[in-house]
Amino acid sequence: MSDTPATPPRPQIPDVLAQRYASRAMLAVWSPEGRIVSERRLWVAVMKAQAALGVEIPPEAIAAYEAVLEQVDLADIEARERVLRHDVKARIESYNAAAGHEQIHKGLTSRDLTDNVEQVQVRRSLVLLREKTAAALLQLAARAVEHAATPIVGRTHHVPAQPTTLGKRLAMFGETLLRGFERLDDALERYPLRGIKGAVGTRLDQLTLLDGTEGTPGTGGEAKAGSASERLDGLERGIAAELGFSRVLGAVGQIYPRALDFEVLSALYQTGAGLSDFATGMRLMTGHELVSEGFLEGQVGSSAMPHKMNARSCERINGFHTVLAGYLQMTERLAGGQWNEGDVACSVVRRVALPGGMFALDGALETFLTVLGEMQVHGAVIAREVRAQLPFLATTTLLMEGVKAGGGRETLHGIIRDHAVAVARGLHEGSLAKNDLAERLGDDAAFPLDRREVLAVLGDPARFLGDAPAQAKGFMTALAPLRKRFPAAEHYRPEPIL
Amino acid sequence: MSDTPATPPRPQIPDVLAQRYASRAMLAVWSPEGRIVSERRLWVAVMKAQAALGVEIPPEAIAAYEAVLEQVDLADIEARERVLRHDVKARIESYNAAAGHEQIHKGLTSRDLTDNVEQVQVRRSLVLLREKTAAALLQLAARAVEHAATPIVGRTHHVPAQPTTLGKRLAMFGETLLRGFERLDDALERYPLRGIKGAVGTRLDQLTLLDGTEGTPGTGGEAKAGSASERLDGLERGIAAELGFSRVLGAVGQIYPRALDFEVLSALYQTGAGLSDFATGMRLMTGHELVSEGFLEGQVGSSAMPHKMNARSCERINGFHTVLAGYLQMTERLAGGQWNEGDVACSVVRRVALPGGMFALDGALETFLTVLGEMQVHGAVIAREVRAQLPFLATTTLLMEGVKAGGGRETLHGIIRDHAVAVARGLHEGSLAKNDLAERLGDDAAFPLDRREVLAVLGDPARFLGDAPAQAKGFMTALAPLRKRFPAAEHYRPEPIL
Amino acid sequence: MSDTPATPPRPQIPDVLAQRYASRAMLAVWSPEGRIVSERRLWVAVMKAQAALGVEIPPEAIAAYEAVLEQVDLADIEARERVLRHDVKARIESYNAAAGHEQIHKGLTSRDLTDNVEQVQVRRSLVLLREKTAAALLQLAARAVEHAATPIVGRTHHVPAQPTTLGKRLAMFGETLLRGFERLDDALERYPLRGIKGAVGTRLDQLTLLDGTEGTPGTGGEAKAGSASERLDGLERGIAAELGFSRVLGAVGQIYPRALDFEVLSALYQTGAGLSDFATGMRLMTGHELVSEGFLEGQVGSSAMPHKMNARSCERINGFHTVLAGYLQMTERLAGGQWNEGDVACSVVRRVALPGGMFALDGALETFLTVLGEMQVHGAVIAREVRAQLPFLATTTLLMEGVKAGGGRETLHGIIRDHAVAVARGLHEGSLAKNDLAERLGDDAAFPLDRREVLAVLGDPARFLGDAPAQAKGFMTALAPLRKRFPAAEHYRPEPIL
Amino acid sequence: MSDTPATPPRPQIPDVLAQRYASRAMLAVWSPEGRIVSERRLWVAVMKAQAALGVEIPPEAIAAYEAVLEQVDLADIEARERVLRHDVKARIESYNAAAGHEQIHKGLTSRDLTDNVEQVQVRRSLVLLREKTAAALLQLAARAVEHAATPIVGRTHHVPAQPTTLGKRLAMFGETLLRGFERLDDALERYPLRGIKGAVGTRLDQLTLLDGTEGTPGTGGEAKAGSASERLDGLERGIAAELGFSRVLGAVGQIYPRALDFEVLSALYQTGAGLSDFATGMRLMTGHELVSEGFLEGQVGSSAMPHKMNARSCERINGFHTVLAGYLQMTERLAGGQWNEGDVACSVVRRVALPGGMFALDGALETFLTVLGEMQVHGAVIAREVRAQLPFLATTTLLMEGVKAGGGRETLHGIIRDHAVAVARGLHEGSLAKNDLAERLGDDAAFPLDRREVLAVLGDPARFLGDAPAQAKGFMTALAPLRKRFPAAEHYRPEPIL
Repeated sequence: MSDTPATPPRPQIPDVLAQRYASRAMLAVWSPEGRIVSERRLWVAVMKAQAALGVEIPPEAIAAYEAVLEQVDLADIEARERVLRHDVKARIESYNAAAGHEQIHKGLTSRDLTDNVEQVQVRRSLVLLREKTAAALLQLAARAVEHAATPIVGRTHHVPAQPTTLGKRLAMFGETLLRGFERLDDALERYPLRGIKGAVGTRLDQLTLLDGTEGTPGTGGEAKAGSASERLDGLERGIAAELGFSRVLGAVGQIYPRALDFEVLSALYQTGAGLSDFATGMRLMTGHELVSEGFLEGQVGSSAMPHKMNARSCERINGFHTVLAGYLQMTERLAGGQWNEGDVACSVVRRVALPGGMFALDGALETFLTVLGEMQVHGAVIAREVRAQLPFLATTTLLMEGVKAGGGRETLHGIIRDHAVAVARGLHEGSLAKNDLAERLGDDAAFPLDRREVLAVLGDPARFLGDAPAQAKGFMTALAPLRKRFPAAEHYRPEPIL
Repeated sequence: MSDTPATPPRPQIPDVLAQRYASRAMLAVWSPEGRIVSERRLWVAVMKAQAALGVEIPPEAIAAYEAVLEQVDLADIEARERVLRHDVKARIESYNAAAGHEQIHKGLTSRDLTDNVEQVQVRRSLVLLREKTAAALLQLAARAVEHAATPIVGRTHHVPAQPTTLGKRLAMFGETLLRGFERLDDALERYPLRGIKGAVGTRLDQLTLLDGTEGTPGTGGEAKAGSASERLDGLERGIAAELGFSRVLGAVGQIYPRALDFEVLSALYQTGAGLSDFATGMRLMTGHELVSEGFLEGQVGSSAMPHKMNARSCERINGFHTVLAGYLQMTERLAGGQWNEGDVACSVVRRVALPGGMFALDGALETFLTVLGEMQVHGAVIAREVRAQLPFLATTTLLMEGVKAGGGRETLHGIIRDHAVAVARGLHEGSLAKNDLAERLGDDAAFPLDRREVLAVLGDPARFLGDAPAQAKGFMTALAPLRKRFPAAEHYRPEPIL
Repeated sequence: MSDTPATPPRPQIPDVLAQRYASRAMLAVWSPEGRIVSERRLWVAVMKAQAALGVEIPPEAIAAYEAVLEQVDLADIEARERVLRHDVKARIESYNAAAGHEQIHKGLTSRDLTDNVEQVQVRRSLVLLREKTAAALLQLAARAVEHAATPIVGRTHHVPAQPTTLGKRLAMFGETLLRGFERLDDALERYPLRGIKGAVGTRLDQLTLLDGTEGTPGTGGEAKAGSASERLDGLERGIAAELGFSRVLGAVGQIYPRALDFEVLSALYQTGAGLSDFATGMRLMTGHELVSEGFLEGQVGSSAMPHKMNARSCERINGFHTVLAGYLQMTERLAGGQWNEGDVACSVVRRVALPGGMFALDGALETFLTVLGEMQVHGAVIAREVRAQLPFLATTTLLMEGVKAGGGRETLHGIIRDHAVAVARGLHEGSLAKNDLAERLGDDAAFPLDRREVLAVLGDPARFLGDAPAQAKGFMTALAPLRKRFPAAEHYRPEPIL
Repeated sequence: MSDTPATPPRPQIPDVLAQRYASRAMLAVWSPEGRIVSERRLWVAVMKAQAALGVEIPPEAIAAYEAVLEQVDLADIEARERVLRHDVKARIESYNAAAGHEQIHKGLTSRDLTDNVEQVQVRRSLVLLREKTAAALLQLAARAVEHAATPIVGRTHHVPAQPTTLGKRLAMFGETLLRGFERLDDALERYPLRGIKGAVGTRLDQLTLLDGTEGTPGTGGEAKAGSASERLDGLERGIAAELGFSRVLGAVGQIYPRALDFEVLSALYQTGAGLSDFATGMRLMTGHELVSEGFLEGQVGSSAMPHKMNARSCERINGFHTVLAGYLQMTERLAGGQWNEGDVACSVVRRVALPGGMFALDGALETFLTVLGEMQVHGAVIAREVRAQLPFLATTTLLMEGVKAGGGRETLHGIIRDHAVAVARGLHEGSLAKNDLAERLGDDAAFPLDRREVLAVLGDPARFLGDAPAQAKGFMTALAPLRKRFPAAEHYRPEPIL
């Protein structure tokens, strides 16, 4: 195509998640060059394994391929692909041209290559994310312990309910995150390699290649296939081990089952749910000025309203979770929809969703760790709110005390309700300046406790916290095995975020 | 509301999944009466445990509650709820009225009740579905073994690619299903009970209840809480064990983390993916008349076209998977969106999605087992197709043989491509009556094999099957531990389907 | 099946959305009996139209069918379906048996029946929902006007930003709802009937039926088909008009394009978004005690915490939106996935998603109208918050005034930021008892306004409201055409909710 | 940060959809530079409009800004953002530094800028996509007309049902696409601009800016605001008109309602459904070798199987639809979840989903047009299949003829069914070499037609096509207004695809 030079170059648009949010370590897994180098490593590994099994491949060819392994010429590949309309073919030819041989990709179909390479990328990403999630858990637990005994107004339906502690609330978010970690860990530990299964998964081409090379001729018939199959099993296990996998799939088609991508993305999404619960909680607390994300020097809250301490990073964490939902959706639709031994309706989907999902959770974790490091707890505001709400917060306890003092549960419930509603209405309408619920209850003859007894109940704040302090600390205790397994996680520091 | 009696009754609309598709065992878990009985069992269990810890509850009250435990009056409950606008309250009052006491629900908040009861329902459902999935795997494997060596045209991009066997294709679907089973098994094994955590998760009300009843007074302060907390831990473990759970959650709020519902539904969806892959494959094969679902006596394929053997049940399986995606979506949106210690924005969602998801997978499994039992394999049609496509299917093998005979891979690839494309075009345009690719290749001087050698390759069908027969059998072998664990699964028979 | 009587009946599980939330009018559209009666009406209409075109159908047969039209025996139909495994066939036979003839369903395929009947149900539902959405808009606008000039703290990032008015905030939610209404209106106005298109959409059976009955023989060949086609066009238009449709689809297959279901559900979802924005806003405001949903007599906020005025109904509205997302998901997956002229992979999906979606939006609208009618505005609390936040809220105005007084925008921004941040920190840490931002700015020589000028700005509250009051009223003005078109909407009252 | 130079640059990862699939025209809308230039145009437009209303902005400042409008220094902006943690602020400072003034962004909040600029991008994208969808419709209709009378086996449940024509099948896909076009057209025609509404939507800052500049002082109070409001209305309308919008939103908050993004994406998705139906149909037909996508010179079907004519592009179209579902999901979750007057939880989501959705549909349309241009129809194979299936396909017609000849519908149905099922089984099992259904029916005394009459029915193929040819042509006729409105669409040629 001699006139190609005249075509102006296409505008370059960077992947926004990669550019703005993902960490460098994650970018290195998914950059175009990084991918091609991985692919070439696979080709070389397969050639070596084939040669060891007797396939005739000159050692000097292997050496030539290895010599140019990292010389990736993306422009050359793209030009070839535009003619061939086949991406793998383009990369084969580009590598062949660079090495001066035609020995790679023997007995491989495109998916022998692409699926295995992509699984390597997925696996490396999961390793990074698991470690970073461990960091998130440990650093969250440290905050939970720090504020284990800080009383705060517990809310259900977003309305004051009973006291809890800030540390326990943080631990509560941690419970969801911990569960996400377990899913991530599971998904990674049993993540299997597809292996070199050939065009329709029968390993025919490899068997043909090996036929007659040594030992029993592997003609592929069931009766005789034994030893050739065994040698192939060895070949697959060898490649898997070199790439870091402990399991190899069995009866697959051209591709590994796409439900596996759904499994991975659903684990990412579930991990993100823990971060998102935290972020939602932070945003709600920010609305009551109980906490803030903190300001760095030079940062402003808003171009129009300079003083605002917005929970922008937490909003972003929620945003990442929504983004994850989109990528989950993409892989979700691939699961269960394979046609026969495979197709490429999943190709563009996985090009988008796999790196996208990894970048999004990576960005969410980086942001989460940043917020955790910089968050400010407004102790004075928190304490003020607890004091103001205490009479309402104590109603459950007063009800229990009343029952113990001999009242009927439903009857006392009615008494408390009537006074509490009246007080709430008075405050809402402005007819009441101060919450006098305690006094009203003490003065009501139908209520078993007198004013002194009621005030005594209110005067012992620690009794309203229940198990909260212990639960906050217990969360850290439960992470002991995790800390041991990921010793660096506690000290991981996120990259500066935008 | 004196005129209420005049209001005509609301039309009854049954749950369509329950009515048409779910099994009786699953219906028993989710019927209105079944749920209330479970709830009452929890109340009674809690009363007994509380009494054992010293809470003053008269034994005759407990006896009275137990006596009316199964006398569920749904109309009474609904009437009360319409006035109170609070469903749990309505059920408490209905039970109290029936028993003539006010002793249940002490120190419980609504969610202490509802969350734990719903978790029991979820758990029971998962037990049923796990067992049924094991049945599906074993019965699919039996079919795979039966057809392990039946050659069939393997297709990628829905186009003939290489031979495989029908048994291996079935095993391929099984790989996805097996993975779903593992997710289901995991989700069930580690499914934790929320426990009796009180209004905001701090266990305050139970601690208050227990205060002074025995041993160290549990005033709830961190220093002294030890023993009361320990007694509560025992209370929770006791209730959990009675209900069949081995884990209890730690620092939760009013509710268990909703990400847990997502975890369960995503496991259901992934299991459904295996069924859906199978169904898609069956539908595609039906289109080539290779298989059919089979007819029962009296059944007709279509009111307008009586002979049609439609893959209706497999279409339905795909439909169930889509339905599961919808319920997954619902729980997905709950994950990561909790406000503070909890809210009821999830209430209507979980009422719909939890039973819905269970019914849908249950229906899909029942349908799958029915199809598996009745499917017909059209051996004559399958063999005819293999014969017709063999010259094309053999190209990869011929390429490999050519390489072994000394040809350059890329050069031979071009030769085969040119002839194959020409033959394909001739057949498509009608200018060619029969596939003569083998002859063309043998006669081409540039191709290293002569006509006799080419035909010899084509004449040995078994050599094209590669490992397919072994993989089909290997799938069954891999299920050995499963068969041992679920001995009845192999013999499970689905209920008659609509 | 002589042993059938011994089988215990299946537990009945009601559709939870129908049972608890949907209105009676909506239930009447989707009840089992209602559907069958609609179906029979279609059959009768088709027979009459066919007879008019010359098809030999005895008038006494038509009369016999009409006589038993409403005698629906669901048990009989179910028994037949279990044998036939074909639902439509079962209903045909049941109706035939009741009437004593075999004349219905001539030249119809199952989908000629089911698709058209379901479209009637969808259309009737949309009519109900459109009217109810109009009611929601008008009643929301009335509230917006009522509170058009009530100052309230405007928040971005959930943090106080600038004052707005409560009425404008309500109108803001209304903007989203209005947009949803437009989508609903569009979807309904152009909702087309599939028509009687036959087994693969070619109208072959009807053409064959009409062949030779009169005029030009409709042999179906392109050349001669004219007049028979025209008569069929008339038949379809007649049926469509009788059923309330103005458009009939053209080149469809066995079924209407399922993307149409997605279009409808996406309009429902978008309408729900307006309700959900409102509900989210109400829940946030409830958290600051600015508003509440209100209590009915006898209602309690929580069994454990009787005084709590929870935003339960608004939480439920958010829940309905999540439910809608699930049903949207189901129809979304049907769009774009039709195989050839059609299949029934959509069948179970549409059985669940179509009524489900209608019930969910109906329930959300009923709940919304209830909340709107009962909501309480806590004027005293709202005013208190405005006073407390005013110095911060005024910074943008002070900045603008400073610019007008000659300051550089960026410089003044920095001055205000430094003071505002210092004040905020002081309040958060407890070192400052009162917001003295105004005094600090007035006393800062670098700020162009002095203390008197700054306080003068703060002393004129109306100036901070901008256009808010006008916008709130403008929303009502914009609804004038709607009020005219739906005169009853303003006065619609929701049914009592649970 | 003096050590910044030492940090190695982040790996660049291109947006995969932009890089591989989207058209140049679409890329120009979303490139980083393009966006910033649009933003600067808005700033300049606002300054001019403000100056015209009396705001003091020196003409030489405006000139200085205009002079450097296209000098976008992305690196400078990124460096500033890393310090400020605020993207808009960074772009303001970068522009100010370049122009040497501080006059832009007066009375604007960040969202006044970003929301309006993004809406311009959305609008420009929709204009491109609408035109291209018109092209897709017209070119599809041309194919439908071309094959209007080509008989083909119509399939329901993927099983042969009745004959149709290839042209009618293409028109059937077109019906879905046309509906998508209508949604796209609607969404674009009524797409409203948010306008310059200020920090919480009250237009306070603009009102303050205009205060005292001329005419009645706009103090913001409702009574006096009239004329300032009117001037602001004019300002907004002016900006809207300049940017190509005909509607401006009313009572919005800081941001436009995010349900609008859902509306747009759902229109994209629905449009994609038409393309996806077509692609699914093509893939199924490819499996029966009825059609193929065609090969370009130099293209190979598969590296391992060179002759394969895979429906890769159609698979990709299905893939794009799945990708669209993911982006739809992202915007779906934003709808209905706004907090108060706005937040940035949507920010990262919209950065991903808006361009992503546009690129995906753009790529799908480009691919669709390519397939349409290159597809090959294998007439010989199509005709062969019709002949082989005709006896089965004719059963409905034979049933109708039998009814006309006096038979009872249900009785004849049974006769045909029994013979048809027997023939089908014979063919499947290999006991029957040829379909002799016609002969069997003719020879059956219980069937009203004799062998000669039956064969006469089969001998007139055109009679089985029904209205199919007319429907195929009618689709083109229905597009007449579209052709007139988009005169260039018929001749649009896609860019070469990978």
